[in-house]
Amino acid sequence: MELPPQVQNMLAQLQTVQQQLQMVVSQKVQLENALKEVENAIQEVEKVEESTPIYKSVGTVLVKTKKEDVLKELNEKKETIEVRIRALSRQEEKLKERLKELQEKVKSMLSGVQAG
Amino acid sequence: MELPPQVQNMLAQLQTVQQQLQMVVSQKVQLENALKEVENAIQEVEKVEESTPIYKSVGTVLVKTKKEDVLKELNEKKETIEVRIRALSRQEEKLKERLKELQEKVKSMLSGVQAG
Amino acid sequence: MELPPQVQNMLAQLQTVQQQLQMVVSQKVQLENALKEVENAIQEVEKVEESTPIYKSVGTVLVKTKKEDVLKELNEKKETIEVRIRALSRQEEKLKERLKELQEKVKSMLSGVQAG
Amino acid sequence: MELPPQVQNMLAQLQTVQQQLQMVVSQKVQLENALKEVENAIQEVEKVEESTPIYKSVGTVLVKTKKEDVLKELNEKKETIEVRIRALSRQEEKLKERLKELQEKVKSMLSGVQAG
Repeated sequence: MELPPQVQNMLAQLQTVQQQLQMVVSQKVQLENALKEVENAIQEVEKVEESTPIYKSVGTVLVKTKKEDVLKELNEKKETIEVRIRALSRQEEKLKERLKELQEKVKSMLSGVQAG
Repeated sequence: MELPPQVQNMLAQLQTVQQQLQMVVSQKVQLENALKEVENAIQEVEKVEESTPIYKSVGTVLVKTKKEDVLKELNEKKETIEVRIRALSRQEEKLKERLKELQEKVKSMLSGVQAG
Repeated sequence: MELPPQVQNMLAQLQTVQQQLQMVVSQKVQLENALKEVENAIQEVEKVEESTPIYKSVGTVLVKTKKEDVLKELNEKKETIEVRIRALSRQEEKLKERLKELQEKVKSMLSGVQAG
Repeated sequence: MELPPQVQNMLAQLQTVQQQLQMVVSQKVQLENALKEVENAIQEVEKVEESTPIYKSVGTVLVKTKKEDVLKELNEKKETIEVRIRALSRQEEKLKERLKELQEKVKSMLSGVQAG
């Protein structure tokens, strides 16, 4: 049995939404790992005395810096990542709702097809 | 010839166990590489004089540290990795046994099917 | 309906060009990321005082360098990357044109086939 | 037309040899890149004055070292890589010969089949 065009169309939309959801989730996982790394760096730098030599890496270059400056940068980086994670979480929620809606529609359409 | 449902079910279980085994083995290989890296770092740091400048990298930051402190951290890291490798080895053993059992069952079921 | 040999041949060419285009685009993306990294390093090094200790990494080795020397190297690297990006952009344009031509040909061939 | 067992067997061997060849070639490419990196590091370290501070990275740790010591280590690393590249080149040659032999055999077998 061939599926009617509107069901095929729904299934195509469903697949697109699933792919978008997968991409959002994988970006979130990556950012959550980056967040852990930054939080760990902040924790390690905070432990250190004011006079301890610290370098930061910028690409292939290492530049000497101060505890205070590097903590400020790391905290800014942390906030940027957190903002992006929150945005991705909102996207994730919306895509999950959209997915549920589409699944319901496909389900009811298919039961209509089978009944017809 | 179509396979009977219980054989199909067994084959599905077999595939799941094989995939779990693959994942466990690949995690073990990764941890064994991490272990080699840590052991190599311990060896190199031990060779060095007490007064030699040493930095440890924390994310994108490098912080000056002492031979004694870095050796303590590296040894803790080593132990953590060893514990995880032992846990994965136990899982590997169990999955291999489970795989063997399932293979035996599928074999005897299939000989039953062919005889029937 | 089987496709006539010249259409099959065109479709094979089309696929080759699409693959070449994908490779060029992915190389360009990689180089654009490398460019951003170098530009960011230049910006960070420029901010720093003449007397600030700077190291550059060469494989697994870090060598102390000067602000002036590292900036010269980073700017050379930047130029090399920019030259390669421009070459890839030209290739990309040519492949896109070739793709469009082939798509037009296949389209007109196929309409000829259907009409025949 | 189904292929005779000995031809199928030959084709299976051919595929195995092709896969082995691919693996050897990809390992060689990786080692050649590692060689370039080491050679580049040697070149950069040689340019530097005896008094220039140099660190070597061992995993996540950086240890201060001397120009002389790091050059010795890098040259040893270079030799190890070169030995492995030579071994892979010999393997590559043998696999290519084996591949050619198998291709000839399959060809003559298939012409025999078609004639029969």
